[in-house]
Amino acid sequence: MEPIKVLLEDQEIPRQWYNIQADLPTPMRPPLHPATGKPVSPEDLAPIFPMNLIEQEATTQRWIDIPEEVLEKYLLWRPSPLCRARNFEKLLDAPVKIFYKNEGVSPAGSHKPNTAVPQAYYNKAFGINRLSTETGAGQWGSALSMACQMFGLECRVFMVRVSYEQKPYRRMMMNVWGAECIPSPSDITEAGRNVLAAHPDSPGSLGIAISEAIEDAVSHPGSRYSLGSVLNHVLLHQTIVGLESQKQFAKIGLYPDVVMGCAGGGSNFAGISLPYVRDRIHGKDVRIVGAEPTACPTLTRGPFAYDFGDLAKKTPLLPMYTLGHDYVPAPIHAGGLRYHGMAPIVSHLLKENLIEAKAYHQLDTFQAGVMWARSEGFIPAPETNHVIAAVVDEARRAKEEGKEKVILFNWSGHGMVDLASYEAYLTGKLIPHELPDEEIDRALRAIEGFPKP
Amino acid sequence: MEPIKVLLEDQEIPRQWYNIQADLPTPMRPPLHPATGKPVSPEDLAPIFPMNLIEQEATTQRWIDIPEEVLEKYLLWRPSPLCRARNFEKLLDAPVKIFYKNEGVSPAGSHKPNTAVPQAYYNKAFGINRLSTETGAGQWGSALSMACQMFGLECRVFMVRVSYEQKPYRRMMMNVWGAECIPSPSDITEAGRNVLAAHPDSPGSLGIAISEAIEDAVSHPGSRYSLGSVLNHVLLHQTIVGLESQKQFAKIGLYPDVVMGCAGGGSNFAGISLPYVRDRIHGKDVRIVGAEPTACPTLTRGPFAYDFGDLAKKTPLLPMYTLGHDYVPAPIHAGGLRYHGMAPIVSHLLKENLIEAKAYHQLDTFQAGVMWARSEGFIPAPETNHVIAAVVDEARRAKEEGKEKVILFNWSGHGMVDLASYEAYLTGKLIPHELPDEEIDRALRAIEGFPKP
Repeated sequence: MEPIKVLLEDQEIPRQWYNIQADLPTPMRPPLHPATGKPVSPEDLAPIFPMNLIEQEATTQRWIDIPEEVLEKYLLWRPSPLCRARNFEKLLDAPVKIFYKNEGVSPAGSHKPNTAVPQAYYNKAFGINRLSTETGAGQWGSALSMACQMFGLECRVFMVRVSYEQKPYRRMMMNVWGAECIPSPSDITEAGRNVLAAHPDSPGSLGIAISEAIEDAVSHPGSRYSLGSVLNHVLLHQTIVGLESQKQFAKIGLYPDVVMGCAGGGSNFAGISLPYVRDRIHGKDVRIVGAEPTACPTLTRGPFAYDFGDLAKKTPLLPMYTLGHDYVPAPIHAGGLRYHGMAPIVSHLLKENLIEAKAYHQLDTFQAGVMWARSEGFIPAPETNHVIAAVVDEARRAKEEGKEKVILFNWSGHGMVDLASYEAYLTGKLIPHELPDEEIDRALRAIEGFPKP
Repeated sequence: MEPIKVLLEDQEIPRQWYNIQADLPTPMRPPLHPATGKPVSPEDLAPIFPMNLIEQEATTQRWIDIPEEVLEKYLLWRPSPLCRARNFEKLLDAPVKIFYKNEGVSPAGSHKPNTAVPQAYYNKAFGINRLSTETGAGQWGSALSMACQMFGLECRVFMVRVSYEQKPYRRMMMNVWGAECIPSPSDITEAGRNVLAAHPDSPGSLGIAISEAIEDAVSHPGSRYSLGSVLNHVLLHQTIVGLESQKQFAKIGLYPDVVMGCAGGGSNFAGISLPYVRDRIHGKDVRIVGAEPTACPTLTRGPFAYDFGDLAKKTPLLPMYTLGHDYVPAPIHAGGLRYHGMAPIVSHLLKENLIEAKAYHQLDTFQAGVMWARSEGFIPAPETNHVIAAVVDEARRAKEEGKEKVILFNWSGHGMVDLASYEAYLTGKLIPHELPDEEIDRALRAIEGFPKP
């Protein structure tokens, strides 16, 4: 019986988040105000976010203290275990050691509470009493619902309609935690009504839902908006994952050759990888790989451009890999990976060749996920299946090259409320979503004439 | 920031299960062969169970080595954390320290894999290649599906129809792990057909499903039957929970005043409590309390009697608290607590006043569960809500008496695939199931004339 888990005691939890902005070889392009084309000011963002988070968004301070109140909530499930997937390794029969951070151990079942908790905390500390947000698969919405409940904030969640229908359990989870969940596009915002007028059957998208949530926040006094990915402060909070893993690897005297995560808006991928990107910047030989769906291939097929974060153009222009703000990807089950853009930090790192990206087809990701469930037990979320497919790829390459490798990846969440997608896969009902170049070209016309980064 | 979790490293996992039969002040009554009225012999059971488990069922050896192959699988999620519920304590405002073993961390989300894994292992070791079983809420069926997949056994699960319909996700989980799941009563067994002939709309019960699974096992070569609760060897395997908790309490220099678990067939309750019952037998001042539903009040309203374990009378006569083998409880959402009888070990302990039992109404249990979810984050299974209601009770009493108490309970599983039951509760759709004395009297007529223990 060989140990397979590396644990940290509660008192070993990292006390600071890591801010990659302190170590970037070249500075990031600023977000621009769409009307002026000039960098946005903190005041521009003040109706949307509390000032303490706006400051965190822009700071270049390397280490940010995690407030005591946040640490206390983190301890409900953190530090998460670093696990070795020996059974999966045997199945792959490749010269690899596969480690994963099990972020499925959180109450919401994913990595999302890592930023939901501090966001609720900082809003509360700033005097805010209500948050609005959007959610794709529902992982973010459920996480924020829980965090708001913990700090006594009201919470309204706009959930992408296709996921609202495919994943009723996540809506119920939000209700258990006392939040209100509304399918998007809805008729309670102007942004939603505009979409419904043009497309009454719209399956929705994260871009649309973001527009609705921002409109909802700015039109309610004492309210702010909360975003579950993309932004710098969100990625900052998620670095707790990678930082813990570094402490855990230090305990067993190992260091990964490859660090991997699935990438939708970028928070899960960045959460595990930013502390390793730092090492890479300082000369360490480590590869960082993001895995995305072929149905929404932002990093692998989008240009690096300024674009809006949402459909209704309510956000600043963000410098990022994007498929255009009105791109509505096919309704794949990995709802959390259906975002048209990518976190500016992750985009910057790809632009600077500090990370790599690969795209995987939905059918291949479910094949990998079922292999995982049948060997390691735990059933992964459809999003997580993307990085597992990438791990399978990486192991295959290691075998071909005859090279030993230590692989680390972020097991972003479990699939207990995504089981309908597995049923669709197992009964042959998953539709392949092939994506012709023309579709992407058409989508990209939406950003023609925007400022170039 | 105070630590709230007590962890065990992989290498600290207990290497032996604890067998309470070695320490009972009075011996247990034997199971009887219904035809002869004589104690059943190992040969009687051989068509149903493999001989290695039959031996485990009867042994009085105090400590049983856990096979290496089982320990390896246990490590995928065990040792489970011992957690302190500080937020829930604050809410109750009582002089109690509340600790819980989080058995929701297993891949199937409940304590059931603790016995599913060894049962699959021992069957495999005995040369069996296929298992049949029944399941209520689906927690046992999913756990056995996973365990069979891990050891390369085929698996067929008969799932109580009301749960099959209420909890489709658990059926899907079984499919992901490669098992076949059939709603019970079904038309593929004689036992099922008999029920359907009399009650075409039968919601099913564990008793009926057991009959179907046994019939299915004995009619397929190379097959055996597997039971997820009730039997001595099942409770034996579950003692890993209580044994871990004792190591964990030793680390922080505490010992519980009260140990609690919800009780359906008895395995979850016994799993956490048997090592403490041992201490109680040896003079330690510790109370042990089981919590059951008022809709199926086996321990609190049933007589101690010999009865069949199943509806079709295919099992031996077991000495237990029972409501009669044809008792079909109301379709409460805690499907795992809808068993007409109770494990002979647990029954014996109650008879000997070594443990206590209390019954809780479904509405009160959901109220407690929502309180839990909104303070501690994790959403409990409906079964688990019963013990949480009992903890609330215990805390209230401690407050009234002004007495400090350390409470330990088994958080038997999460409610991620039981969310429809929370929705029913939150929208006021849960029906109160009041249980008149006449209903129990009527049910008990089924065991009139049986041998008396």
